[in-house]
Amino acid sequence: MDDDLPPQVSKDLRPARHGPTIRDVARLAEVSIGTASKALNASGRLREETREKVQRVAREIGYRPNDMAQSLHRTRSMTVGIISTDSFGRFTLPIFQALEEQFADQGIAVFMCNATDDPEREQQHLDQLLGKRIDGMVVTARRADKRPPIVGLPPHIPVVYVFSQADDPDALSLLPDDEGGARLATEHLLAQGRRRIAHIAGPERFEAVNLRHRGYLSALAAAGVTPDPAHYLTGSWAESWGRDAVAQLFDGSATPPDGLFCDNDQIGRGTLDALRERGISVPEQVAVVGFDNWEVMAAAARPPLSSIDMNLSALGREAGERLLAMIDGEQDRGVLRLPCTLVVRESSNPQGNSK
Amino acid sequence: MDDDLPPQVSKDLRPARHGPTIRDVARLAEVSIGTASKALNASGRLREETREKVQRVAREIGYRPNDMAQSLHRTRSMTVGIISTDSFGRFTLPIFQALEEQFADQGIAVFMCNATDDPEREQQHLDQLLGKRIDGMVVTARRADKRPPIVGLPPHIPVVYVFSQADDPDALSLLPDDEGGARLATEHLLAQGRRRIAHIAGPERFEAVNLRHRGYLSALAAAGVTPDPAHYLTGSWAESWGRDAVAQLFDGSATPPDGLFCDNDQIGRGTLDALRERGISVPEQVAVVGFDNWEVMAAAARPPLSSIDMNLSALGREAGERLLAMIDGEQDRGVLRLPCTLVVRESSNPQGNSK
Repeated sequence: MDDDLPPQVSKDLRPARHGPTIRDVARLAEVSIGTASKALNASGRLREETREKVQRVAREIGYRPNDMAQSLHRTRSMTVGIISTDSFGRFTLPIFQALEEQFADQGIAVFMCNATDDPEREQQHLDQLLGKRIDGMVVTARRADKRPPIVGLPPHIPVVYVFSQADDPDALSLLPDDEGGARLATEHLLAQGRRRIAHIAGPERFEAVNLRHRGYLSALAAAGVTPDPAHYLTGSWAESWGRDAVAQLFDGSATPPDGLFCDNDQIGRGTLDALRERGISVPEQVAVVGFDNWEVMAAAARPPLSSIDMNLSALGREAGERLLAMIDGEQDRGVLRLPCTLVVRESSNPQGNSK
Repeated sequence: MDDDLPPQVSKDLRPARHGPTIRDVARLAEVSIGTASKALNASGRLREETREKVQRVAREIGYRPNDMAQSLHRTRSMTVGIISTDSFGRFTLPIFQALEEQFADQGIAVFMCNATDDPEREQQHLDQLLGKRIDGMVVTARRADKRPPIVGLPPHIPVVYVFSQADDPDALSLLPDDEGGARLATEHLLAQGRRRIAHIAGPERFEAVNLRHRGYLSALAAAGVTPDPAHYLTGSWAESWGRDAVAQLFDGSATPPDGLFCDNDQIGRGTLDALRERGISVPEQVAVVGFDNWEVMAAAARPPLSSIDMNLSALGREAGERLLAMIDGEQDRGVLRLPCTLVVRESSNPQGNSK
């Protein structure tokens, strides 16, 4: 949480909050910010006792929506824009769906814009959204690498970057914790008794690939295991890369790996096919963990592939919460990384499926 | 094309068009309806000679935007709503993307709503969209089976169903031609010299499955090939079903198939894995064609899987064109099925990749 005013924001436009905020109300009433806002604005479907509880807490702690937020509220268009700077794909979809659901609960309609990495198109969309007097904006992308911040927005329109990172210290960016996810995967393989764990990675130019390698190394270090430099291979995101990597690691090697951490489920699946075709049993001889928990790919693998889930729906909900709070006058910035979780299937554990 | 007034629409609300329509202008100027509308409304990015050509054609044929459309135009909100009655997935995405792009070209912003088969949620979204005074609406779904029509919209707000079918003769529904796609796949297998072609289908309750089986049968009939009833198997949409179907068709059979038409690429991929593991060579002994042309699944298969492409982007563009024309005052209704295309890869042809 960072409730301090970023120094660059001029105070006449974004007044600092004194006294309790809607976040305090939500915390004390044990509800989400979205629910608190709904209860206080008397909008949306809500159980009556929830509404009463929130209103009681707000009274008790002397919560007063600040004037700026109130005046904004009076002129709110009840619309929010989402710009994807890349085609909508399987990463942005769950995020979008979580956001849409949350905003719909608040009576806020969502404009969707697709800019496909075309700055001119993005500017066109921005102009259009401003013309619609949106209350706030979410920026999302296919990969979480840094991008130039959105510029030209009036200061009262907050922006949240999700699965996207603005190259701007005053921006708020929400990302999955790639490093933590990789640590989880590697710790799990260590817990299965594996010591020769390879990291079969995506292309090195991706920030996520480097963060994950760091997580892998830190888990090995914490377990006192010295990594074999030959066990770190970078390549592409494709199944064929998983098969090629297995050929490199296993064919003719005297000390092949006994565990594989793969940077996505396609790579993981490629390794499973290649291992099966070599008569190497999974998970007995080699345990494998992927990344993304892409159900259609991971669950259909033989054996089903353990994987790291980036919890993109939760990431979308958190982005929605924060945007709602910012529309309500709160300040927020920084890079926030939300935890990944491990989904265990048979590729790393004979019992498997113990999510 | 169906420019007749549906009899049930009251004429005072939706005047019949006399004289040339924007569709005539577009046809004669050899541009899309969207481009024609842009040129006539002096909005959007357009090459100058295109704009002049459209305006010249419009003058020459005496095109006059009708009064109703004009008056609508004056009060247009320049927003359109898209409701998906199922989660956004890989089928609705390319449709949505094509629509968004087209509407953005017209300066129209798109509200996205996700109803996930929840009628109450759908009604909530509808109310919200009406409050935003949308100019038109697109309804889409995960599968193209019939659904109840959207009710309660004022008659001047046109609706297009795409990859979704309204149970209402006055509605306009745009769908892929499943039957034609299956015929293409089967004709291709016949052209490869195959005569014992099996249809490994999805669940029988899907309209698409039945339409595709009809296409398969008609292609066989046209070639004078008698289908073997044992060569039609219905199951699920999963890879494992493809593997199971191969076991049923090949293990212990004296006359196994020499061609497989599979209802999606996951089934197709399952058959390829199962055939490889039996030492049956593809495409030499058995040629295989899938459906959906889901790149990440079909291109990564071993060998790469031939597939039927539903051309969902084109379907989305056509839906956008028609909605724009309807917003401009045109009448349209009926069920329109757009052609699928065959993408040949190595699973059905050793030369492969001759899209």
